[in-house]
Amino acid sequence: MTIESLAEGVIARDQRAMARAITLVENVSPEGATLIGRLFGRSGGAKIIGVTGAPGVGKSTLVDGMTTEWRRRNRTVGILAVDPTSPFSGGAVLGDRIRMQSHAGDSGVYVRSMATRGHLGGLAQATNDAAVILDAAGTDVVIVETVGVGQGEVDIVRTADVSIVVMVPGAGDDVQAIKAGIMEIADIFVVNKADREGADRAVSEIEAALMLHEYADGDWRPPVLKTEAARSTGVNALLDAVEQFVECHEHDRDRLRVRAEVRLRETLSGQLIASLERRDDTRAALEDAVERIARRDIDPYTAAAEIMERAG
Amino acid sequence: MTIESLAEGVIARDQRAMARAITLVENVSPEGATLIGRLFGRSGGAKIIGVTGAPGVGKSTLVDGMTTEWRRRNRTVGILAVDPTSPFSGGAVLGDRIRMQSHAGDSGVYVRSMATRGHLGGLAQATNDAAVILDAAGTDVVIVETVGVGQGEVDIVRTADVSIVVMVPGAGDDVQAIKAGIMEIADIFVVNKADREGADRAVSEIEAALMLHEYADGDWRPPVLKTEAARSTGVNALLDAVEQFVECHEHDRDRLRVRAEVRLRETLSGQLIASLERRDDTRAALEDAVERIARRDIDPYTAAAEIMERAG
Repeated sequence: MTIESLAEGVIARDQRAMARAITLVENVSPEGATLIGRLFGRSGGAKIIGVTGAPGVGKSTLVDGMTTEWRRRNRTVGILAVDPTSPFSGGAVLGDRIRMQSHAGDSGVYVRSMATRGHLGGLAQATNDAAVILDAAGTDVVIVETVGVGQGEVDIVRTADVSIVVMVPGAGDDVQAIKAGIMEIADIFVVNKADREGADRAVSEIEAALMLHEYADGDWRPPVLKTEAARSTGVNALLDAVEQFVECHEHDRDRLRVRAEVRLRETLSGQLIASLERRDDTRAALEDAVERIARRDIDPYTAAAEIMERAG
Repeated sequence: MTIESLAEGVIARDQRAMARAITLVENVSPEGATLIGRLFGRSGGAKIIGVTGAPGVGKSTLVDGMTTEWRRRNRTVGILAVDPTSPFSGGAVLGDRIRMQSHAGDSGVYVRSMATRGHLGGLAQATNDAAVILDAAGTDVVIVETVGVGQGEVDIVRTADVSIVVMVPGAGDDVQAIKAGIMEIADIFVVNKADREGADRAVSEIEAALMLHEYADGDWRPPVLKTEAARSTGVNALLDAVEQFVECHEHDRDRLRVRAEVRLRETLSGQLIASLERRDDTRAALEDAVERIARRDIDPYTAAAEIMERAG
């Protein structure tokens, strides 16, 4: 199948073409770059929703509930579940199968776990490329689900139209961590499992932490919403908040510029490494440098400079 | 101060020189690269210990307890607390002050929170460079503390000599996440807050998950240890496990090669972007490309190819 016919398949929302296209970008291949070049101009219609939170807060159930509700609102949905550790375990594939069950037979829902296959790094880039593919396929809402609050997650979340941070009651320390950290990447906070003891206290604590932040007139103040995803409680209100946020920020040029910058930088890094690996002489130089760094015969900066010199 | 005298200051374990050196590498400056080039051959003596876990599991208290115990064993200790989100909040600096208190006046302990200042990405690289600086300064044990299990954390942990994953009892879902994920980056598991209900169950669950993994004869099987870091219980046993692991793997060539490869790749990416930003023409091309990507006039791959072409 040529890249051109693959691109046509994606645009026609052919699920097999979409799956093949995402595999191409996961593998950080030149064909993947060509494909994204072909599809990028077709993208921009989808709303990209970042959902992040620690393991165990019920992100998957929440994303499932959001998907069901968006389908009721006649939106097509794509879910990209980012599992940075699956190259080690292959866990992502099993997760896909479990997730697919609740929306089986609904061609308006596309679910995919993202993992880099053998490559180091590149997961944020592959995920953003996969979002372009789902977007170009005419998906209305692309949910990017990430675990944790690492640098990679921050980069993924910064390329979303709206970022939802999910927490659970009874995690007092977590709120401390929020204060010192992820607060400013969240556009909307969700306290999930809100039937648990301490839900209202968790909401108050997050709201108190938000009070410490200075907002200018007209700034968006992140709402703190309660959900019980397992019973679909609060999911509608969450979707309303998402749509309200997206509407307010659709033409936010700073946000668009930051997203473009993150994208360009990760693409540059990825393409540089890929181009070095394709040429016999630079691939040999990379392998040689790894050995020399391992023996501490050379430092990584000098090695990098030598390789960049050789690449011309 | 010249780079040469700064390097001498670091080697002489001058705390102000160490602080300035780490700031240089945080800023991803050419001087930082020169400095690491100067110090790299002096490094390799320290043991790098990665400690990772979700917010709220008590990592800081545990690291504090480990530090106290290592000081009793006459080891000098450096702590690098990685806070990927602090560029947004400035939270890292406060954290430093709180942490320093318990080891105030002890020149054998050096504590630093790592954050990228305004730059996107680069945190893993800066942290690894900071570890080289502490290492070259004659630090015996460098503890790198990271939140979460994102790609960035995986990359940091993969450059450590030993990786400790910290959990707490009563997080059944977390163990599920472990099964599907981070299990294979952990050399040692710690169930902290082991006085809480469910500690033994948590240990059994992790051990059961480990049983599913296939180990060859002679492979290290990650121990699952209980600690109450707040009361220093179990910390000694943890240090023994760390030392045992490090001794077994000191000459593990595969591990050294993976570390060198991760280092080389992140350095190449960082240096490429930095070199593009230093030249007027390519900096202008970067800025222009960001605008065009934001308008969807060009895709990131084509833009990256154009910039790499121009860079020559």
